[in-house]
Amino acid sequence: MASFQTVKGFRDFFPQECALRNYITETWRSVARRYGFVEYEAPLLEETNLYRKKSGDEITNQLFCFRDKAEREISLRPEVTPSLARMVAEKQRDFKKPIKWFQIGPCFRYEVPQKGRGREFIQFNADILGDSSSAPSAELIALAIDVLREFGICTPEDFIIRLSNREIWNIFLADKKIAEEHTTTFLSIIDKIERASAEETEKKLSVIGLTLAEVRDFMASTNENHPAFAELRENLTARGLWKFVEIDATIVRGLAYYTGVVFEVFDKKHGLRALAGGGSYDKLCALISDGTVDLPAAGFAMGDVVLGILLEQTPSAQMKLTSAYLAASSIDAFVVVADEAQRPHALAAIQALRAAGIRADYSFGPQKVGKQFQAAEDRKARFAIVFGAEYPEVVIKNLLARSQSAVPVDGLVAEVQKLLAEPAIGPLIA
Amino acid sequence: MASFQTVKGFRDFFPQECALRNYITETWRSVARRYGFVEYEAPLLEETNLYRKKSGDEITNQLFCFRDKAEREISLRPEVTPSLARMVAEKQRDFKKPIKWFQIGPCFRYEVPQKGRGREFIQFNADILGDSSSAPSAELIALAIDVLREFGICTPEDFIIRLSNREIWNIFLADKKIAEEHTTTFLSIIDKIERASAEETEKKLSVIGLTLAEVRDFMASTNENHPAFAELRENLTARGLWKFVEIDATIVRGLAYYTGVVFEVFDKKHGLRALAGGGSYDKLCALISDGTVDLPAAGFAMGDVVLGILLEQTPSAQMKLTSAYLAASSIDAFVVVADEAQRPHALAAIQALRAAGIRADYSFGPQKVGKQFQAAEDRKARFAIVFGAEYPEVVIKNLLARSQSAVPVDGLVAEVQKLLAEPAIGPLIA
Repeated sequence: MASFQTVKGFRDFFPQECALRNYITETWRSVARRYGFVEYEAPLLEETNLYRKKSGDEITNQLFCFRDKAEREISLRPEVTPSLARMVAEKQRDFKKPIKWFQIGPCFRYEVPQKGRGREFIQFNADILGDSSSAPSAELIALAIDVLREFGICTPEDFIIRLSNREIWNIFLADKKIAEEHTTTFLSIIDKIERASAEETEKKLSVIGLTLAEVRDFMASTNENHPAFAELRENLTARGLWKFVEIDATIVRGLAYYTGVVFEVFDKKHGLRALAGGGSYDKLCALISDGTVDLPAAGFAMGDVVLGILLEQTPSAQMKLTSAYLAASSIDAFVVVADEAQRPHALAAIQALRAAGIRADYSFGPQKVGKQFQAAEDRKARFAIVFGAEYPEVVIKNLLARSQSAVPVDGLVAEVQKLLAEPAIGPLIA
Repeated sequence: MASFQTVKGFRDFFPQECALRNYITETWRSVARRYGFVEYEAPLLEETNLYRKKSGDEITNQLFCFRDKAEREISLRPEVTPSLARMVAEKQRDFKKPIKWFQIGPCFRYEVPQKGRGREFIQFNADILGDSSSAPSAELIALAIDVLREFGICTPEDFIIRLSNREIWNIFLADKKIAEEHTTTFLSIIDKIERASAEETEKKLSVIGLTLAEVRDFMASTNENHPAFAELRENLTARGLWKFVEIDATIVRGLAYYTGVVFEVFDKKHGLRALAGGGSYDKLCALISDGTVDLPAAGFAMGDVVLGILLEQTPSAQMKLTSAYLAASSIDAFVVVADEAQRPHALAAIQALRAAGIRADYSFGPQKVGKQFQAAEDRKARFAIVFGAEYPEVVIKNLLARSQSAVPVDGLVAEVQKLLAEPAIGPLIA
């Protein structure tokens, strides 16, 4: 029993967990790049006031916030968008609009850990700044869909985009002659409508002069034909992606942050928490920069934790995951030193193999040949290369096909490269 | 002027800085994997006591340490080795020995920021646990050399491994009949010998019964023929890498941590701080696990900051760096909508291009064709694909070769894939 433990809510990434993390982050990165997004990263710490400015003072209850040795109030970042707004406000003149940026990295929140929510998680953020049309939202929704498809979460039976637009509620409230000052209160009632009891909701609505029936009628009548969705529908239909979208007027996503389109991504088979969420936030840059930079913006974030659970539970995703695990831990060639007199030659060959980009390993000290072959199998090597008394001839054994050939050591690297280019034969996964 | 600033000593990674970071981390990852190392990651936070246990109470002066809301004393990690020892102590039975693991991620230290040292840096750690011979040290030194060579830092004129072994000083002290209790004091004098004045060093040595002349004589007589280096020399000579090594008895690397081989990597042209450092630390696992797990170990760490400065200053490294910057921000194809009636078809084609792994982008709204071509150039696209009145025929323009061809839209993806497989012609870098 070790005397130290992982800090509550934090994760050790042993090789298998690290392979999952890398598979997720590399997939995010590769699909975002296909969409023409460019990567950035923000600091892991910011002044606590940055988060207060965006979310109000209550946010500090959910932050890892502390004072450093110089009494600065700093916080581990709970999200990246405030940093993005800060960075863009500082240097936006250096970049052509629209800015299409993505980011991948850890975030932190001080909450009671529960399934699908630790205190540390890795988040993927994609944002588009400087275009006020609905096209950025369409692009972001398409990206969210394609990211999931790349993971093997492929059909509208697997996941759904729940889409809304805060504008529809503004129109509703104007129709009902409700004063604008009630908008925030009203949206927070809608945000909780699926979790709260009807009585509770009715009571809250009555304070601002509405009934639950009015709200429910409006929600029932709101569908994809609402003009607020026309452009998005046309765009995503052209891409063949509208089938993944479901209008859901209850999606408002929290407080004052979002300004128009809002969406959340949910799996449809396992009842997990939201996989991703986002929308347009046209006022954040101006807020963070005290009005000096005013850029329309839209973005979404996807975390690694709920996604990881879904990948493990979805057969079409598991196969890709298994390949990723194998690729992360396997090597191409294991060099077997059958005759210790040849060790210097074996070391020179290992060096040459690695210099050619071949993943090669060997036993550090004298070991029985059988043990070395066992090590080659343990490492899931495709080839064992035997340095024995026949040197300068060496034997290449294909551990999957159970075949072998002999080559002069001078031709070894070229031969292994040739063999690696051939399709692997045999039981790849033990 | 933005109202918020980056926290002192922390970095914003705008796209160019992020491309440098990714180039460095991907190079580390790829060379480590060639060497058969498997990736892990530790939490960014640990109990402060973990660092106290390894380094003593003074370490807290250099830590970002704080109490969380439950009054736990926690610290942002200043290094990863204590976490590695904790993780290995917990689960070492699950892994075959030797364990060859690497890690890449941010570390933090609370220090006055200066050139080459911020409060946050990204570190690459490679460690081998469970083999007590000198072979792991040879493997690690070879890895450090090959990492630098992969970056284009290639010759012994560019960098050097300064190698020592604490054992040589143990033998020296035993010869001089100096009591073992003075070893730590003595090593800290040696650690500072190049920076301290001769008078100061003489004074400190006299306290434990030694003279500077004795020490200097011993250092001058210590060379690669010392038996403490015999195995390493043989191993690295077989790999053709001994030419990168220089024996330097002043290298002891700080306090009680290291037990045998120690080494540091320095550039030879720019007088920068050490690029990397490491050695064997056979007692750390036992220390961290209160004696329950005792594994010999060796490792090294390389940071991104000094390395980044060196890459920018070394011509043979700059070319690779420039390619990395281009690859991170460029796209394959920019779709030009010359006729707005074709926008839905263009969107469908963009979707198909991206699904085939092609990096494709476009203008979100109606824009003059000239502006769209300008955007294609700005994005360093290799091809512009024009959707105009000729649809379903589309025109592919090679923006480097300044040539063009027309294809039916059904054959677009295959044609672009074929063209991308051809070598790029033209001025790749503007």
